[in-house]
Amino acid sequence: MGPGPINADPRVLRAMSAQLVGQYDPAMTAYMAETQELYRDVFRTANDATLLIDGTSRAGIEAALVSLITPGDRVLVPIFGRFGHLLVEIAERCGADVHTIETEWGTVFAPEQIEAAIIEVRPALLAVVHGDTSTTLAQPLEDLGAICRAHDVLFYTDVTASIGGNEFLADEWGLDAVTAGLQKCLGGPSGSAPITLSPRAVDVITARKSIEAGIRAEGDAVRDDRIRSNYFDLAMVLDYWGPRRLNHHTEATTMLYGARECARILVEEGLETAWQRHRLHGTAMAEGLAALGLAVFGDQQHRMNNVVGVEIPDGVDGEAIRSELLHDYGIEIGTSFGPLHGRIWRVGTMGYNARKDAVLVTLASLEQVLRRAGVRVSAGAGASAAQDVYGSAV
Amino acid sequence: MGPGPINADPRVLRAMSAQLVGQYDPAMTAYMAETQELYRDVFRTANDATLLIDGTSRAGIEAALVSLITPGDRVLVPIFGRFGHLLVEIAERCGADVHTIETEWGTVFAPEQIEAAIIEVRPALLAVVHGDTSTTLAQPLEDLGAICRAHDVLFYTDVTASIGGNEFLADEWGLDAVTAGLQKCLGGPSGSAPITLSPRAVDVITARKSIEAGIRAEGDAVRDDRIRSNYFDLAMVLDYWGPRRLNHHTEATTMLYGARECARILVEEGLETAWQRHRLHGTAMAEGLAALGLAVFGDQQHRMNNVVGVEIPDGVDGEAIRSELLHDYGIEIGTSFGPLHGRIWRVGTMGYNARKDAVLVTLASLEQVLRRAGVRVSAGAGASAAQDVYGSAV
Repeated sequence: MGPGPINADPRVLRAMSAQLVGQYDPAMTAYMAETQELYRDVFRTANDATLLIDGTSRAGIEAALVSLITPGDRVLVPIFGRFGHLLVEIAERCGADVHTIETEWGTVFAPEQIEAAIIEVRPALLAVVHGDTSTTLAQPLEDLGAICRAHDVLFYTDVTASIGGNEFLADEWGLDAVTAGLQKCLGGPSGSAPITLSPRAVDVITARKSIEAGIRAEGDAVRDDRIRSNYFDLAMVLDYWGPRRLNHHTEATTMLYGARECARILVEEGLETAWQRHRLHGTAMAEGLAALGLAVFGDQQHRMNNVVGVEIPDGVDGEAIRSELLHDYGIEIGTSFGPLHGRIWRVGTMGYNARKDAVLVTLASLEQVLRRAGVRVSAGAGASAAQDVYGSAV
Repeated sequence: MGPGPINADPRVLRAMSAQLVGQYDPAMTAYMAETQELYRDVFRTANDATLLIDGTSRAGIEAALVSLITPGDRVLVPIFGRFGHLLVEIAERCGADVHTIETEWGTVFAPEQIEAAIIEVRPALLAVVHGDTSTTLAQPLEDLGAICRAHDVLFYTDVTASIGGNEFLADEWGLDAVTAGLQKCLGGPSGSAPITLSPRAVDVITARKSIEAGIRAEGDAVRDDRIRSNYFDLAMVLDYWGPRRLNHHTEATTMLYGARECARILVEEGLETAWQRHRLHGTAMAEGLAALGLAVFGDQQHRMNNVVGVEIPDGVDGEAIRSELLHDYGIEIGTSFGPLHGRIWRVGTMGYNARKDAVLVTLASLEQVLRRAGVRVSAGAGASAAQDVYGSAV
């Protein structure tokens, strides 16, 4: 019940135990095409360029950035938590001239703040995390697409933490590149990174491919347009997933089975239903934790449905509580990073764990552990508050 | 029965259906430590720095090269097949000054040829593929470690195609960096890349980490020592797997379960026994194919145990044969790349498929398909020749 990775859906694990088929077997290429179509539904996009990167969600981020960024490009990263810093770190290694704006952990940006920074920096790319589990908040993105178009900026986001549990509409919101991972609300294991690219992003990437062949002969040593990575070269990866099926890496078949099943489960349930399920169980968890006397962290207007931060009570050893909950009750909750380290716990309700029994058992167990640690908790308050949420939802 | 990826061992698939645990759960860190120890056995190394890269075998290659190569470094790549060209391509993108020597596909290099090139080029790194499935050959490596030490050159090889099915001794042969994949003789799916680094290689990589923090302030724009990738930065990945457990990516737990089981199966069998099993079944397949009238390709003294190339008979449509074998008999054999395209088929006997029944069924089926295509084959010759190999081995 941490901020992810979480337990996988048993259906996903079962799908991953299927025998392999050859990478150009018609069955395999059909699975690949089906997986692309499913992730178009998940991302809410019509982008043809929708596929999987064979690596963790961090691999997806690097693939997007290294393929979109030509060394020297200005990139703007609004930072509202740990993963904003990660985007900076990766973009810098891609050779970008990175500019940042920061807001206090527990808050998000107003669109005007981001537009003002775009006007000042004039970046080629805006790179912003959607949901940042480090603070539990989600940056509203719906107004940023139009702003990016108005200023001719590419718009990239990572939705690893939010996708499947929170409203996300890639095309309607004007995204050019989106990366994800399976290990949060999609209910799968880490190791495959779904990605989607708008035609505009594909044009940028494809142009870099065509530049690659010719430019070296002209001997321009200062500006090297070649995509710096082979593994993450989306121009080549697109040809591998596309009708030409040009050999690149050897597809990670078992991870593809898993990614496909994650999306099948979600599409069967319906995206709106899944978002609502996450909101229901996330609210029940938050209300339950508050009723146990724990102060909920951050701007609740912009909290993700699937993870809540609560302040560790004064005088309580946060790690001792987490340890007892894990070892005696078999339940994992999250610690925190950076400025929140030692200040808050993070509790997730996502994917297969966005369930009533998981919420109630967690609240019941945490109550026991808090009481043993000397925290004054009113008996049954947590589970009761959660039940009230469920009762009013019926 | 192609050159890989191949069917996974059912034990590996079963291991991959196990439920996930948190990435810092004591059970998980114990699995990680156990996996490292198992791969030390598989690589025949005492290297502490033995771990998994979360991606396909190509990801392992890029992680090794991008972490070892400082832009501008001279790198020597002896090319004897398709994967030598891949090393060149990746090393170039890492900013290396790449020099190559080439030998005809179907042959390998004598150590003196490689030493002469080292003396001429004076590279920082020698990067050479061990087994190259494109030609079915394995470059002998046992003399190259001493040569590299004598000339102060780092020695890197990729053993994806050979490991587990052919003798390989990382420490005895003087390797500084070795990368692998699961999808050949290890009997697993693509998607995890075991890697091992000598203390000398770790020193090079760690030195680049310490340079990273300081050098930017000095404003040296010509030479940028920072490792160009975040995801493949082995300095950080070592800290993630090491006792500090510094957060990096989210470990691909299911792939780790798979990689661990692949190594457990191999270590239980015994490396020498596994090499011998691959030699036995590879020989039976090669003799069987020859008895069907097909000419075996390349220098047989240096052929890998686990894959054999045979020339497509004149007047026969190689793809039609492959298609009938796949669709009517459920058996996949490989096509070829580059100069061998349309000239040879490649037939594998590796991992879980290095079995007597798999060899005999393949030979029996291919006989039928060849005969239907109008090739004159003497009835039963293939299976019979293979049985002779098995008989003489008892």
